Amino acid sequence: MSLILGVDPGLTRCGFALIEGKKAIDYGMFQSKPADDPAQRVGSIALELEKLVKKHQPTLIALERVFAQANLRSVMGVAQISGALMAIAHKHMIPVEFFTPSEVKAAVAGHGRANKEQVSQMVTRLLGLKEVPRPADVADALAVALCAQAKSAIVSTAARKKWVAAEKAAKRKLG
Amino acid sequence: MSLILGVDPGLTRCGFALIEGKKAIDYGMFQSKPADDPAQRVGSIALELEKLVKKHQPTLIALERVFAQANLRSVMGVAQISGALMAIAHKHMIPVEFFTPSEVKAAVAGHGRANKEQVSQMVTRLLGLKEVPRPADVADALAVALCAQAKSAIVSTAARKKWVAAEKAAKRKLG
Repeated sequence: MSLILGVDPGLTRCGFALIEGKKAIDYGMFQSKPADDPAQRVGSIALELEKLVKKHQPTLIALERVFAQANLRSVMGVAQISGALMAIAHKHMIPVEFFTPSEVKAAVAGHGRANKEQVSQMVTRLLGLKEVPRPADVADALAVALCAQAKSAIVSTAARKKWVAAEKAAKRKLG
Repeated sequence: MSLILGVDPGLTRCGFALIEGKKAIDYGMFQSKPADDPAQRVGSIALELEKLVKKHQPTLIALERVFAQANLRSVMGVAQISGALMAIAHKHMIPVEFFTPSEVKAAVAGHGRANKEQVSQMVTRLLGLKEVPRPADVADALAVALCAQAKSAIVSTAARKKWVAAEKAAKRKLG
């Protein structure tokens, strides 16, 4: 089965999620302080991400594709963390795939305009988590990993079949 | 004496320059193809940058600070390469400093609105190069390294004194 590392990259909060089939193996968030040195911020988060990659050797790393946003500063942080992670992935020969925010939302909540709370709720159902993951950065990392599982050409067909079944079951529960 | 690695980060063309005092130790450019996989592009350039860092163990890594530009796509590439380099610097415990484009221009050409050709010419004079470095990405990497040498608090006072003398001499030559 494929082990997928989903990441919601960010300099202040960087969500991560490791999923295998419909099981969440590990998930959480790395943080850095805005007052710290920029290279220190990127470097410390990259170090944590590399530890995860080394430990779990995921089949695939999934990231959200970033678009123009109001805040260039936050886009820059996202791109810096993404760049560091892309370099780590390349070094460890792990493929990276990008998904648009609406692809991620559609994959977990059924439509591309789902709000953050709907995404968090669906992620909780699909993976059978005891609590809704907080903050949204963690739920987003889980969502992008689930999206990759549903859509990636790299991930095995067997894993995808299980996913489709889990998705249907979760949607039935939500009514 | 301080060894400074100046980098003009970019995904298609990434200029680099290693200077020690007024001597250019090594300079050139790494490239990746726009048609290639994004993680492959960032990863291959990051690998080359890490080789340089490992080989030369610079005292300081100097980068241009990126601002809003018309082309978000190119800003993203710059930020991705910068992020990968910041992570490498952090891992090898090498400080990173950022300089604005006008600081870089002012440091090598005497004023913040110098054009690319003036920057290239001044860099050639200051470092006594046989040929004007091409393309501009290489000259920019040399310029940001020279700027760091002139302005960084980390670089030793002795190196800075030599720099000031070299700068004066070069400006006299240019008339």
